[in-house]
Amino acid sequence: MDTPSLDTLIIGAGSAGLAALREVRKRTERFVLINDGPYGTTCARVGCMPSKLLIEAANAYHQRHTLGEFGITGADGLAADLPAVLRRLRRLRDDFVAGARQITDALGARSIAGRARLLGPQQVQVNGTSGTIYHAKSIILAPGSKPVLPPEWRALGDRILTTDTLFEQATLGPRIAVIGLGPVGVELAQALARLGLQVTGYATSEWLGGLSDPAVNTSLHEALARDFSLHTGPAATLHTIPDGSGGISGIEVRSGEHRSVVDHVLVAIGRRPQLACLGLDTLGVALDDKGMPPVNPQTMQIANLPVYLAGDAHNHRPLLHEAADEGHIAGMNALAPATRCYQRRTPLAIVFSDPNAAVIGQSLRALQAQSDLVLVTGSIDFARQGRARASQHHHGRLNVYADQTSGRLLGAELCAPAGEHLAHLLALAIDQQLTVGQLLGMPFYHPVLEEGLRTALRDAARQLDPARTSVQASDLATCDAIGAEALD
Amino acid sequence: MDTPSLDTLIIGAGSAGLAALREVRKRTERFVLINDGPYGTTCARVGCMPSKLLIEAANAYHQRHTLGEFGITGADGLAADLPAVLRRLRRLRDDFVAGARQITDALGARSIAGRARLLGPQQVQVNGTSGTIYHAKSIILAPGSKPVLPPEWRALGDRILTTDTLFEQATLGPRIAVIGLGPVGVELAQALARLGLQVTGYATSEWLGGLSDPAVNTSLHEALARDFSLHTGPAATLHTIPDGSGGISGIEVRSGEHRSVVDHVLVAIGRRPQLACLGLDTLGVALDDKGMPPVNPQTMQIANLPVYLAGDAHNHRPLLHEAADEGHIAGMNALAPATRCYQRRTPLAIVFSDPNAAVIGQSLRALQAQSDLVLVTGSIDFARQGRARASQHHHGRLNVYADQTSGRLLGAELCAPAGEHLAHLLALAIDQQLTVGQLLGMPFYHPVLEEGLRTALRDAARQLDPARTSVQASDLATCDAIGAEALD
Repeated sequence: MDTPSLDTLIIGAGSAGLAALREVRKRTERFVLINDGPYGTTCARVGCMPSKLLIEAANAYHQRHTLGEFGITGADGLAADLPAVLRRLRRLRDDFVAGARQITDALGARSIAGRARLLGPQQVQVNGTSGTIYHAKSIILAPGSKPVLPPEWRALGDRILTTDTLFEQATLGPRIAVIGLGPVGVELAQALARLGLQVTGYATSEWLGGLSDPAVNTSLHEALARDFSLHTGPAATLHTIPDGSGGISGIEVRSGEHRSVVDHVLVAIGRRPQLACLGLDTLGVALDDKGMPPVNPQTMQIANLPVYLAGDAHNHRPLLHEAADEGHIAGMNALAPATRCYQRRTPLAIVFSDPNAAVIGQSLRALQAQSDLVLVTGSIDFARQGRARASQHHHGRLNVYADQTSGRLLGAELCAPAGEHLAHLLALAIDQQLTVGQLLGMPFYHPVLEEGLRTALRDAARQLDPARTSVQASDLATCDAIGAEALD
Repeated sequence: MDTPSLDTLIIGAGSAGLAALREVRKRTERFVLINDGPYGTTCARVGCMPSKLLIEAANAYHQRHTLGEFGITGADGLAADLPAVLRRLRRLRDDFVAGARQITDALGARSIAGRARLLGPQQVQVNGTSGTIYHAKSIILAPGSKPVLPPEWRALGDRILTTDTLFEQATLGPRIAVIGLGPVGVELAQALARLGLQVTGYATSEWLGGLSDPAVNTSLHEALARDFSLHTGPAATLHTIPDGSGGISGIEVRSGEHRSVVDHVLVAIGRRPQLACLGLDTLGVALDDKGMPPVNPQTMQIANLPVYLAGDAHNHRPLLHEAADEGHIAGMNALAPATRCYQRRTPLAIVFSDPNAAVIGQSLRALQAQSDLVLVTGSIDFARQGRARASQHHHGRLNVYADQTSGRLLGAELCAPAGEHLAHLLALAIDQQLTVGQLLGMPFYHPVLEEGLRTALRDAARQLDPARTSVQASDLATCDAIGAEALD
């Protein structure tokens, strides 16, 4: 069955698809939105929001360890009721999901539940080879991603969890392995440990949570090791332990010589774009070895086709705020007379561990790869920082990277108290292409954790090209110079 | 007794005096630092640091009210041991004070304990009319300030406290009145209430904590009223209540018809510069009705004399980070061949209440006084903000003010979760003279409280001159426009 021609067609009702929808609706009513699987977005259902709800509960409970020092008694009587924590998580999550669902529900017949497959750059068939065929002047692909779960692990049954299933559990553990210590693995392993589970984390790389600065990575490692056992080694293998009556009593995790027996395994080894069944082969463009077509990140356009790819499926920066930007760009371009380029935002990646970890602007690894760059690193250890000591959050490190010649701030990595906030401040500074001296010209209140950032900036300022520093101090005659030189 | 001539002489070993010292020592060894009263700085001894130590303990205890909702049991068994809280406060405070004292202790004979009095613009006498007379090419005055305590209240005895005595108490209350609800009164009243004291706060003005935006002020009022009883009315009077055996059983506080009986009264009605005994009359310049000489805030110079006034004694911006800047400016100029102007920082004032309150850049009151300005206000109520709900900190409001014509951000007031951090982000944006659109071009991660700021910025962006907004959206072709328009 064929339908009348549309101006555009969106595949995927996640964060990217809904952002595209917002632009599309400003421009036309001749569209449909096709979604396969659950509505409500990865972010709200199984991503950002439920993980943050788990983390907030975990950190609230964890704070009991500081109470005695503050002069508060009775902390020993506190207990985490994990089923209750998970119930609250699902209650609020359902509310966040409902917010996202309202948008698609309000579309009526223009919202279609089903699996879409491209027949070409302007044609889509829904629900198999006998399904409805839609013609559209442009197509926006935002099919999202799903957690990687190797088939041999999936076969081990419901003790093997991903973020798709973790938050649905009535309870967990008491022993759990977390495989993979990227941002998601780090956040969830620490939160589950703080809620009283016996957690063992496994990673094949020493780099945790997406960091690339050795000193910052060490700081995060030390912080996590206070909460759970980390093991770095060969890729883990999983093995069921029979209970003697045909069932399973647990899962054995092996990595090299390391062995542990757990009740659950959370697999957090990454997410894979959901591109396989999308019919990208019908577009007539070359696909790379991961099945990915060429996409311009400034336009979201695939080659020179009227087809746009946005969100996690693109895998360029699988983060909510980037997915939303990509959806907006795709939505604008899908209905524009001519495709336009949009400047992408300054990179920002945050891990909601405690202390928070973050990479802002260019990572140390990316900067060190630029052989013509003379890099200066300014550093602060929060162990002696005044405000951090007052709040008992005196752990962590923040490193800023600047170009020695221009003094310009290029990037930062941190594992620091209030790191998510310091990361935004640094992101704005890098976005505005500020020098270390210019950033030191802003007010730093007292006593605040931002003074720790100032310490790192002053450390960097001392290493900058002296000629340039003296220009700032004498000729410009602003308080920048004061800021750069003053005592901490 | 006369002494050899000095290059410079610093009066006051507080934050401003020590900042001046740092600049002086880079330039000469021919100086002395004279200090009257306790060493260790107002900030570390009786100001920023001890108040923050009290607040951190209070907020840690207060968080018990969120535990049940998170799924944590046993919160009813928690108790605040106020004497233990105060002991920890003094222990850490002593450590901060020791850090400041090390600096003066290391000066040896160049650090002099005593009361200094000017005999003229280049002459100082220490400890009375028979004391040593010092001659110096320049003089830096940084005598600081002390809490205002009317003599009739001082006469009521040791139940009447100021920040000079509060932190020395072994315990407090159980009933306490806080007179004055500026930044210090607000912080301490809330902290003491959260530590279990029965607090009544008194103010003669509806404006709390230095705010001037009615909506933000209402938000702070509501937050404080959840913790303690606020009374606004005529200036309070204090009256002792005899205990029948020659002693006092309490203090009655009266304000209009309002009466309360308390065990302690904390007087927080401001600080007064310690200028009275300084001999400013010998400088040959006119003093204003508060005894203040004319001071240039860009040079810290008094009239055209070789005398500089820095820190709280100046009362221009009695904040630690401003006092430090003033000390640096005074220290540089006191030894410079010619007096130089320094640009002062973007204004930033933070109250460490929960939620934090802050005024960044120009206050609403200051902006409304500019009749030629067409002002746009962008607003966010944190009640429905996602991350704030996840952490149970969903209270507060943030308002940003922009010039409708230029789109430039001019100021903000807030009473918001993580407000101290949002305030720094806004301070940098205002410092860099960014427009609302430029600030919206930075990355806002998800889910973070900074997204609440973005909501306020988008609200402002919608009200800006449409011609200008469309320029940003179509001609510049950056993601700024995406940021300004996208769904929250």
